[in-house]
Amino acid sequence: MTSSTELLPNYLGGQWHSGTGTGTALLDPVTGAQLVRVDATGLDLAAGFAFAREQGGAALRALTYQQRGALLAAVLKVLQANRDAYYEIATANSGTVKNDSAVDIDGGLFTLGVYAKMGETLGARHFLLDGEPARLGKDPLFQSQHIQSPTRGLALFINAFNFPAWGLWEKAAPALLSGVPVIIKPATATAWLTQRMVKDVVDAGILPAGALSVICGSSAGLLDQLQAFDVLSFTGSAETAAVIRSHPAVTQKSVRVNIEADSLNSALLLPGEAAVSEAFDLLAKEVAREMTVKSGQKCTAIRRVFVPETLYTAAAQAISARLAKTTVGNPRNEAVRMGALVNRTQFDAVCEGLDHLKAQAEVLHDGAHHALVDAPADACCLGPTLLGTCSAAGSDAADRVHDTEVFGPVATLIPYRDLAHALQLVRRGQGSLVCSVYGSDAAALAHAATELADSHGRVHIVSPDVAALHTGHGNVMPQSLHGGPGRAGGGEELGGLRALNFYHRRSALQASAAVLAQLAAPAINTSTSSPAEAARTGTTPVAA
Amino acid sequence: MTSSTELLPNYLGGQWHSGTGTGTALLDPVTGAQLVRVDATGLDLAAGFAFAREQGGAALRALTYQQRGALLAAVLKVLQANRDAYYEIATANSGTVKNDSAVDIDGGLFTLGVYAKMGETLGARHFLLDGEPARLGKDPLFQSQHIQSPTRGLALFINAFNFPAWGLWEKAAPALLSGVPVIIKPATATAWLTQRMVKDVVDAGILPAGALSVICGSSAGLLDQLQAFDVLSFTGSAETAAVIRSHPAVTQKSVRVNIEADSLNSALLLPGEAAVSEAFDLLAKEVAREMTVKSGQKCTAIRRVFVPETLYTAAAQAISARLAKTTVGNPRNEAVRMGALVNRTQFDAVCEGLDHLKAQAEVLHDGAHHALVDAPADACCLGPTLLGTCSAAGSDAADRVHDTEVFGPVATLIPYRDLAHALQLVRRGQGSLVCSVYGSDAAALAHAATELADSHGRVHIVSPDVAALHTGHGNVMPQSLHGGPGRAGGGEELGGLRALNFYHRRSALQASAAVLAQLAAPAINTSTSSPAEAARTGTTPVAA
Repeated sequence: MTSSTELLPNYLGGQWHSGTGTGTALLDPVTGAQLVRVDATGLDLAAGFAFAREQGGAALRALTYQQRGALLAAVLKVLQANRDAYYEIATANSGTVKNDSAVDIDGGLFTLGVYAKMGETLGARHFLLDGEPARLGKDPLFQSQHIQSPTRGLALFINAFNFPAWGLWEKAAPALLSGVPVIIKPATATAWLTQRMVKDVVDAGILPAGALSVICGSSAGLLDQLQAFDVLSFTGSAETAAVIRSHPAVTQKSVRVNIEADSLNSALLLPGEAAVSEAFDLLAKEVAREMTVKSGQKCTAIRRVFVPETLYTAAAQAISARLAKTTVGNPRNEAVRMGALVNRTQFDAVCEGLDHLKAQAEVLHDGAHHALVDAPADACCLGPTLLGTCSAAGSDAADRVHDTEVFGPVATLIPYRDLAHALQLVRRGQGSLVCSVYGSDAAALAHAATELADSHGRVHIVSPDVAALHTGHGNVMPQSLHGGPGRAGGGEELGGLRALNFYHRRSALQASAAVLAQLAAPAINTSTSSPAEAARTGTTPVAA
Repeated sequence: MTSSTELLPNYLGGQWHSGTGTGTALLDPVTGAQLVRVDATGLDLAAGFAFAREQGGAALRALTYQQRGALLAAVLKVLQANRDAYYEIATANSGTVKNDSAVDIDGGLFTLGVYAKMGETLGARHFLLDGEPARLGKDPLFQSQHIQSPTRGLALFINAFNFPAWGLWEKAAPALLSGVPVIIKPATATAWLTQRMVKDVVDAGILPAGALSVICGSSAGLLDQLQAFDVLSFTGSAETAAVIRSHPAVTQKSVRVNIEADSLNSALLLPGEAAVSEAFDLLAKEVAREMTVKSGQKCTAIRRVFVPETLYTAAAQAISARLAKTTVGNPRNEAVRMGALVNRTQFDAVCEGLDHLKAQAEVLHDGAHHALVDAPADACCLGPTLLGTCSAAGSDAADRVHDTEVFGPVATLIPYRDLAHALQLVRRGQGSLVCSVYGSDAAALAHAATELADSHGRVHIVSPDVAALHTGHGNVMPQSLHGGPGRAGGGEELGGLRALNFYHRRSALQASAAVLAQLAAPAINTSTSSPAEAARTGTTPVAA
């Protein structure tokens, strides 16, 4: 039966290859329909990886940052021209409503566009200057100048199911801009959209051969191909992350790894805000939004909501009232606000996780009571559920809410006694991608943010003056770091030019001033670059 | 018999603890005398690590960078006052001549002093700004500001035998300046000097309780104590590095790891230089120096020497002539230029490694012919040996010289056909700490350096104009990055303020301009800082 659907080919070694196995079917999580199949059996991985590394890498490194930025801009045009097809695939394969598909598709295109423009800023160079020369003695003739050079390897991405479009481009754009070829292995459940985007780019003949490859299906054997100068970026579970980190390519060959794993993200209403206040309303609105966007299947979604104990009931009511209005069901029906979970496995995992949490929490809003709109009873759709730990003492006792990431429309309301208690509870997440903080006092917000910064890759601060402007707790902006320490995997993605660090090798060149003077050439196209723009970054790749 | 020597106590949990086992004896590699014993049996590691993390970390983080810099300056004073004792320990336990002890001891003190001064630059702050704010939309009210915050964990250092002093301070200075407490586990063979330095600092009562601890003896169980926000820095063999990387603390808890492992460092004489030229002489001098300093027991020492095929014989003669003058033996004898290898194990390993290389190389200068001065026949002393691969074709065929790090006074002369061939041969090292390049043409030197940068943490360029100024191939300057990709472990140490990255967590704070404005306070003491100085760094921690 599965053989009746199209078998998506893989692109490796500059050619399309269909897997030689029967393949795995990709399904519609609402209708259950089989859509396409993927399979990676029989690929010559060694030859394909060598082709990417040698042909793709050499061709990309021969270009300047400016030229590679122009390639990204051309890729963006191709994707924009095919945007409707991507939305169709997302609806069918991810079960997402249009607004939620946009988070993935348009989010990916926006991020790609930002990195395309950065190429202009970095100019007609083949490596980046990192800081300014430093004297190595009293005589200024002998100095040290750090530079960042593109690694002479490839970038392997093993990606998650929830962002088949954004997850591709938020990683591939910085890699390609850096001059590093990409091999992407999307999560099987939603590999279609990734494969289709790569196909459109390949068909358009924009990138050099070997610069962008896609392998759909099993990841078996991929890590065995990695060599010392390759890099590996993984988004997924902490369990798989540990397996990846233990692989000999990492432990023995020093393959650089970036991990984005589990995260128990928080929203925190600061003490001193009333139940009738803008900050309170902003929290309730953002929590309800984060719980339901993409059915809560975002790594950055709010899982834990911290409010002063006195506001527990009011917050429960305010958030629940918003959740109650969320229509759940078939994403093709315009009345539906929230579509499906990605598949039966995820649906079952969310139900199981909910049961696990319920043993330590009360149900404040029960998603099971939501009637499904225009969807069969066995659709992978589930209403949003808000749990609560009842009291500040209950918050101390409950450990599961800080340890268990239920990857669906589920969050837990956690009352706290005072700010110190709140910070301590937030830190029980052991490192997260993002924490949002709500309040009206600038000093108090800044204080809380700096207290939370060491355990979060991003702190999103919502005050009434930015009510209409703030970019959302869960939205990952390319200007800001994406990643988090500890449980969140310890990775760093995006953050503007900081993203390029992962694909570059830093080196100190110690030399006579006459030799270091040679590094400035060729001159940057000053009409399109701004030193201030470059200096704004964490890597200080100064395009000078 | 071993029980007759002093058992050095460990310092952990703010107290001195002697191990409860019989201990391991530290020996004089020349006389064979037993010096002291170390033992870590019976330590309450869980309590000790918690004390460092909680007491030490909190106390350090309560200080500003400026205050912590002042502590480092005070530590430096104590060490300077006890400098003679350190030289005595080095002579006895490391078997090094005074000049070689200086590389370790004075190198460590110099590095400590550089980081002490940096505290002034960073000012009266508790976290660092990382770049400037970036707009998150057209309206400038909502922006993203990255900051670097000290990690709320401890730093565990597992160090190598060859730098008991420098290895301690080049890591501890940036850690303590960052506000992160340190636990050091020195290599057993030379743990005495590390322990003594820590003891002097502890006795002086400078640092907060828990800020600096030392454990001498077995490293068993240390990694089991690590938690998500701790960091781990290891210097040693690639084999042990792989074991460390596979530990659950790393694979499951995302403990950040820095590794400095094996490295087949190179020296490269560019094409076009004559046998009678300054560049040629500078190469010969530097190779002979690097082979013999600390008996070649430096991670950065030159192992591979690349010269144009036509200069092979001339280079062999020039380097050998210098090596022949090296007197080897008891470091207490003033006629001796090169002391011992650290112990019998290392001596045997070097002899074994030499035999391994000799199967693919000829002997150009045989260290076995050096008579030992003032040392018994069983002293761990060995003359310097220069091997060679005979021809460019021989260089292609020999694989061992690119793979096997013989950690002693041993290097191999490798003739090449042209620059492309030379670069290809250098890269067979699969990533190294440092490559030095010798020549007289600034453009050619800069070109070679940028070609080598991606596979080396440092490229040291020696041209005639800096003959008297250059800081040496193997000397690690705190201004420059120390570390290397691939086989060298992929780590990054030093590099000025870049060293602080490892001990900080980067976070993007997204907020209203009013909230971000709060991050600038408290104002930096502008009399002691220079924004240009801070902007010069790779981390761009802007002290503003």
